[in-house]
Amino acid sequence: MKLTILGCYAATPRSLNNPTSQVLEIKNHLFLIDCGEGTQVQLRKSKIKFSRINHILISHLHGDHFFGLPGLISTFRLLGRTNELHIYGPQGIKEAITLFLKLGDSWTNYPLIFHELSSTEPEKIYEDKKVTITTIPLDHRIYTNGFLFKEQLAERKLNIAAVAKYKIDKCYFQNIKNGKDIVLENNQVIRNALLTFDPPAPKSYAFCSDTAYSEKIIPLIINVDVLYHEATFLESERKLAPKTKHATAKEAAAIAKAANVGMLILGHFSTRYASLELFREEAKTIFPMVELADDGKEFEL
Amino acid sequence: MKLTILGCYAATPRSLNNPTSQVLEIKNHLFLIDCGEGTQVQLRKSKIKFSRINHILISHLHGDHFFGLPGLISTFRLLGRTNELHIYGPQGIKEAITLFLKLGDSWTNYPLIFHELSSTEPEKIYEDKKVTITTIPLDHRIYTNGFLFKEQLAERKLNIAAVAKYKIDKCYFQNIKNGKDIVLENNQVIRNALLTFDPPAPKSYAFCSDTAYSEKIIPLIINVDVLYHEATFLESERKLAPKTKHATAKEAAAIAKAANVGMLILGHFSTRYASLELFREEAKTIFPMVELADDGKEFEL
Repeated sequence: MKLTILGCYAATPRSLNNPTSQVLEIKNHLFLIDCGEGTQVQLRKSKIKFSRINHILISHLHGDHFFGLPGLISTFRLLGRTNELHIYGPQGIKEAITLFLKLGDSWTNYPLIFHELSSTEPEKIYEDKKVTITTIPLDHRIYTNGFLFKEQLAERKLNIAAVAKYKIDKCYFQNIKNGKDIVLENNQVIRNALLTFDPPAPKSYAFCSDTAYSEKIIPLIINVDVLYHEATFLESERKLAPKTKHATAKEAAAIAKAANVGMLILGHFSTRYASLELFREEAKTIFPMVELADDGKEFEL
Repeated sequence: MKLTILGCYAATPRSLNNPTSQVLEIKNHLFLIDCGEGTQVQLRKSKIKFSRINHILISHLHGDHFFGLPGLISTFRLLGRTNELHIYGPQGIKEAITLFLKLGDSWTNYPLIFHELSSTEPEKIYEDKKVTITTIPLDHRIYTNGFLFKEQLAERKLNIAAVAKYKIDKCYFQNIKNGKDIVLENNQVIRNALLTFDPPAPKSYAFCSDTAYSEKIIPLIINVDVLYHEATFLESERKLAPKTKHATAKEAAAIAKAANVGMLILGHFSTRYASLELFREEAKTIFPMVELADDGKEFEL
């Protein structure tokens, strides 16, 4: 699992501060999460292959999470894309993108499939053999979802020494990896636990931005390996947070602690502060495992 | 008159290639022409004050000329703008921008005034005491206008020595600058030509992008001081030009020559070429006064 931060700053794009966008690589999938203006240039800088992105998730329709999407969709067309592109985002996103394409008479030459979200309850929006994605309803000024990515449990690992000992033929290996017991020719039953090891624990990642401090999300993200939580403000501006429906570094840390997450990544920083290290310092007073997002930064998780 | 190129490349934004946008400073007005993705960051890099921009002209609704506009309008709001902002562009632009603002529940706190264009004949879309702007209908894949900026003729310059000689009181000076003759107390008429000098010749600038080679525009831009004409292709790709409704460097030069312009600036370059100098070389075989646009480049005209 690898997370590449393309942009992690609040509000307007600046020369050195890109609005929210990130790429999660999980089980060989690339998921693009949010798409502020400039995302496609940031993708190029991070040398991420455009053709590997088949799913884009948009948390909410504020410009700093969304205004790069029409351009990225157009660029996919210019690059000759043929693969399906799936867009997950709040209701209205299809009308908006479709209008922009219509005005430019620039329809895509690849299938563009919208999955519009309107539920205020968590819902599973994606599932395959490797990964599931579930929404995390957030508390922001407009309809907003975070996203919880979970690896599916992998198949069990073959105990090579054990299958050799019982002289089990290769043709049974897949059944064994799937958890089946084996009956030998002498009718002896070999329990699966003797033939396999547990698979690695499935990894999980939760993206929560933008949101005010909301204890409602805690049960949804309990025990995740990595939580990305917005921290627009420091304590000095903590009164602004509930008004603007954003969170402080300490609030993000309190959520991380209550949800017992493995690691907290802070992002969506206001550009008013001289140093990002202040965010880490304030969060660490509550929760120890804190990392700071930054544009172009990669986390091997 | 000063022209700042914010972006001058065709198609998709890249790390070092911004799509079309430029700022024309003329008689203390700043006009923003086109607004591809990344325009607001380019404005910051060029240290252009956002608050000085009150008029934005959009040639057409292809993404590389337009997708930076929702973000710029939102940024004006975040910066606390109160001045009116006037947007001139093809019909549909109001619906598109309004939908994006509505989806984000992010209405502007300043007056946003749309002037939607649909005429295929040249029309005067702006006039004040200093400047006029007239559309230049272009030949592109979708409805597209270029823009002709003309300084208004300034008032005549007072001949200080002459007014002293005739002992003319200061209170008549404005009338004289406005071109009036003067009647002295002895009823002698002093013709204005004796009291004034001609004002400087009004400057003019024509922006023509995107367009195929079109001789129809020649009478509209005859004798302009500076012509910005798109040159997406070199001769090696000249067969692509009419198909995509773009022009080559030589075609731009042919228009410049036929319209007897003072200077030609080439832009809207395809990024397929190794060197921009090739555009200059090809254009110069037809028209001598050729300059190349480049992102961040400033032309004092």
